[in-house]
Amino acid sequence: MTNGGLLVGEEEKKRRTEVTIYNQQYTIVGEESSEQVRAIAELIDGKMKELKEHNPYLDSTKLAVLTAVNIGNDYLNVLKKMEEE
Amino acid sequence: MTNGGLLVGEEEKKRRTEVTIYNQQYTIVGEESSEQVRAIAELIDGKMKELKEHNPYLDSTKLAVLTAVNIGNDYLNVLKKMEEE
Repeated sequence: MTNGGLLVGEEEKKRRTEVTIYNQQYTIVGEESSEQVRAIAELIDGKMKELKEHNPYLDSTKLAVLTAVNIGNDYLNVLKKMEEE
Repeated sequence: MTNGGLLVGEEEKKRRTEVTIYNQQYTIVGEESSEQVRAIAELIDGKMKELKEHNPYLDSTKLAVLTAVNIGNDYLNVLKKMEEE
């Protein structure tokens, strides 16, 4: 896990934030603010629901994986743009 | 879906790339190069397996959601850094 990454688990010094993503509750443990964690959770929840609307046959795992692929793609595109500048 | 985002579905003009993520096959349809799509798939596959090692009780959906949260967090941190510069 990279620095600043989020983990699930029992880490004493870190902030714990409860979020709901696609009707499941998660406790996110990490150094980020609860505000940022909630913003990410909302982003992922929204993307999963949007994908489900367009692809009703997809199960939750596939929705979550494809959401990760989408965000990973946006992330790589931003990294590429930064390199070009 | 934002521009340049990845979709599953029947889109004629776009590139199709087959990838395997956490033992499941996905057809990713989008404008990105197959090289980039495979790099993202490997990133996600690796992160899911890493999370599983540390949290063996997590099911595939939770692993995928938490992987999306991790990547989303890295993404937001890069966006923040760009704003600051």
